[in-house]
Amino acid sequence: MARSALIAVGGNSLIGIGQRGTIEEQLSNAHATAKKITQLVADGWRVVVTHGNGPQVGAALLRSDRAAGEVYTQPLDVCVAVTQSEIGYLLERGLECELRRAGFYMPVMTILTQVRVNEDDPAFKNPTKPIGPFYSEREAEEKSRRFGWLMVEDAARGYRRVVPSPEPLEILEQEVIRQILDLGIIVIALGGGGIPVIVREDHTVVGVEAVIDKDRASALLAAALGIDCLIISTDVDQVYLNYRTSEQRGIKRATAELMQHYLDNGQFPPGSMGPKIEAAIRFLTNGGKEVVITSPDRVMEAIHGKAGTLITP
Amino acid sequence: MARSALIAVGGNSLIGIGQRGTIEEQLSNAHATAKKITQLVADGWRVVVTHGNGPQVGAALLRSDRAAGEVYTQPLDVCVAVTQSEIGYLLERGLECELRRAGFYMPVMTILTQVRVNEDDPAFKNPTKPIGPFYSEREAEEKSRRFGWLMVEDAARGYRRVVPSPEPLEILEQEVIRQILDLGIIVIALGGGGIPVIVREDHTVVGVEAVIDKDRASALLAAALGIDCLIISTDVDQVYLNYRTSEQRGIKRATAELMQHYLDNGQFPPGSMGPKIEAAIRFLTNGGKEVVITSPDRVMEAIHGKAGTLITP
Repeated sequence: MARSALIAVGGNSLIGIGQRGTIEEQLSNAHATAKKITQLVADGWRVVVTHGNGPQVGAALLRSDRAAGEVYTQPLDVCVAVTQSEIGYLLERGLECELRRAGFYMPVMTILTQVRVNEDDPAFKNPTKPIGPFYSEREAEEKSRRFGWLMVEDAARGYRRVVPSPEPLEILEQEVIRQILDLGIIVIALGGGGIPVIVREDHTVVGVEAVIDKDRASALLAAALGIDCLIISTDVDQVYLNYRTSEQRGIKRATAELMQHYLDNGQFPPGSMGPKIEAAIRFLTNGGKEVVITSPDRVMEAIHGKAGTLITP
Repeated sequence: MARSALIAVGGNSLIGIGQRGTIEEQLSNAHATAKKITQLVADGWRVVVTHGNGPQVGAALLRSDRAAGEVYTQPLDVCVAVTQSEIGYLLERGLECELRRAGFYMPVMTILTQVRVNEDDPAFKNPTKPIGPFYSEREAEEKSRRFGWLMVEDAARGYRRVVPSPEPLEILEQEVIRQILDLGIIVIALGGGGIPVIVREDHTVVGVEAVIDKDRASALLAAALGIDCLIISTDVDQVYLNYRTSEQRGIKRATAELMQHYLDNGQFPPGSMGPKIEAAIRFLTNGGKEVVITSPDRVMEAIHGKAGTLITP
């Protein structure tokens, strides 16, 4: 059986620095990502692709807001859903093209993915994740009054909604994804960390207005699928100690235990490298063999130990 | 092997008459549709669900338009893509709930679906399908000048964009869908008739600003999958001759040949029952065993010959 990798592509990776994020730009970036994934396939890996959706879900929320008087409004869970096929469509087009050009004819498919969360997750009492457009103070007060949104002030840029980021408990489609992988199909799933849902005892599936950390959900899916290597692609080429100080030093290889030690010592900031390291450790303590953290263009070198950060159990 | 059915759910079926189409309303309607599909499953059928997206893709185009100065614009093919996971999410939640309540635990999945069309399809020279919001004359002129859109005047309500409706040639994901059906999974696919794409010789996949007739694409998919029964759910309980005249008469059962005769005699208007009858005939001449045309609430009776219109080869 071929080795398997789950590559978690950053939400910003489809919108380059200085780009406005037109669909043409995003598609062009999707092709660049697809080329790297094609190299993984050529190297003999079976691949699951997951991806973030930060800029895209922000745009979806803004669109829904601006058209609110004219057409029905889309709550956050529906906005996450729409970004799954929006981004999945671009990645799938990129992959289908780049794979075929390299002589690979396996199918690629994008799967709507829901993630079960706990109604009693403490995150629901403490929303922390800023999302969507910026509002003036007056608009923020109105949103808060009309929709019960929690708004926070963002230095200089105005007010922004914050939503909960609950713990992912189970990828509802994980058994399906496992079976599809076994068919030799390349799967794009878990976009934006998945759509957070609560499954009630009467089997009702309730969508919730929250977002799930994409790397955390990816680690959970990778462990559930028995994936060998979790690849977290981000905007730095490797993980650094004393990041952006004169003492900055790259980590080439470390155990989960050592990374936990660095994490406990505040080396990795929350909201940035911190959740990625937590996700990596969780995957490795749940049976994963290795985690690679690197930038998209270094993935192949990192897989072969020539770049990036390799974390082992 | 269980008998297989593909049910094509109407685009308007998630938004009831007089409803504004809030997500709550659409979800409630999705549950009603899911109950009917659960009855099919209980009756021993393997099921593929396809669906239209008329009101939803119109809303997506309007949202993109209203936020155009602030975030990137979504072309029509991307708007079709986003409706696939938007509607798929609601149908999947409805199905997962209603199936479990009835004691069925098979997985349900929503698959992004692209449909190959021909770049030289005459439809591209003659766009006929009105789509998206209504514009004033001045706005229509501006859209036409800036984006090259073809605009037509709609009596009293203003101007509207018209887009091509090319012939679906191949469902790109059909082999994948076949394999997934064989795993006993209920598949939601081909939303809005599928995303129309052109596949170039260099393997580039190009999305096109067009829409594909949902029933026509469903007939193509059903034939490719070797489905036994194509169910076209619509807003009338059966097909009528001399519809809405004093001579109106329901058709309980007919052969494809007889329906072709009625079609040639102008019994079924284009843009409404006409394309459904054409799709039915096409499915039956490509190996399909039966087509049932009825309203969503009559599906089970129609399957057993007690309602609707049954068409055979």
